[in-house]
Amino acid sequence: MGLRLYMGLIHFPVYNKNGERIASAITTLDIHDLARLAKTYDVRNLFIVTPLDDQQELARRVLRHWIEGYGGRYNRHRKEALELVSIVRSLEQVVGRIEEIEGEPPVTIATDASEQKDRSITYEQTRQIIQENKVVTLIFGTAGGLHEEVIKRADSVLAPVSGKKGYNHLSVRTAAAIILDRLAG
Amino acid sequence: MGLRLYMGLIHFPVYNKNGERIASAITTLDIHDLARLAKTYDVRNLFIVTPLDDQQELARRVLRHWIEGYGGRYNRHRKEALELVSIVRSLEQVVGRIEEIEGEPPVTIATDASEQKDRSITYEQTRQIIQENKVVTLIFGTAGGLHEEVIKRADSVLAPVSGKKGYNHLSVRTAAAIILDRLAG
Repeated sequence: MGLRLYMGLIHFPVYNKNGERIASAITTLDIHDLARLAKTYDVRNLFIVTPLDDQQELARRVLRHWIEGYGGRYNRHRKEALELVSIVRSLEQVVGRIEEIEGEPPVTIATDASEQKDRSITYEQTRQIIQENKVVTLIFGTAGGLHEEVIKRADSVLAPVSGKKGYNHLSVRTAAAIILDRLAG
Repeated sequence: MGLRLYMGLIHFPVYNKNGERIASAITTLDIHDLARLAKTYDVRNLFIVTPLDDQQELARRVLRHWIEGYGGRYNRHRKEALELVSIVRSLEQVVGRIEEIEGEPPVTIATDASEQKDRSITYEQTRQIIQENKVVTLIFGTAGGLHEEVIKRADSVLAPVSGKKGYNHLSVRTAAAIILDRLAG
């Protein structure tokens, strides 16, 4: 029956470069890259989270093109991946949708580029939770990363992906790839 | 002294969607994402390989902006990553440059989305070669992947990244992230 694993990509509330609370713009390439990752690692749904109507419409247009439109005929593999994508307004909606599907709320695990003091969870611990078939959703932030109000609401915060020399500035696309491979590969 | 690890991103010769031999266009985002990966995993140089003059010039303009221009002042971390990038004409030039730096030619390991029959190398074997401090360059293809003439010239071909259900269509950005984490993480 596969893993009961979900992903959410958050566009609000996140930080900008100056540490301000913003709604980021959708990067359509992130939707493609993360959907292809979701399909590869047997993730059940990728939620694109933004409260902005025009940004939701942009994301829907991308999905329509690749699922129902020309894109779906041009590239079947891309269609298969993008069929896993849902567009929602808030993290609450992500949790609500997953609860509807699974009959229980998910364990929410936020990802962040900085080390959390008390609420940090290791890759091994998280992998075990996922492999025990618990319902889990991983939460990724865009722009300068998840706002602390999202971090605080999550059940745990995954240890950051960082290199040996402490460089810690990956794109959300490549960080998500590494995290999924470690947890579900 | 760190690993003696290099990466090359090949734009010619690669396949297009119809299996034809082409030179692909540079995706500037790939340069950013792969440079940030290189910096994270202590890769010594990322070679962007294209024989097309206008494409080389595009890549150089990106580097100038982020290293010497406004980008470098705006985002120091991006500058640090892009300083690892070199632009060259061919895989032969990649090998030649590495030989100049290291005093010996690299072991060239190609990456490909399909399983190779006889010349395949596992992640564990490759990791061991890298950790023994041998000079190694990983070769990634853009568009529909490395043309077989590149595959044939490589010393080995790394096993593909594939999910449990056989879906095998990641972007080169996310595939490179997973490969580097497995080999040098």
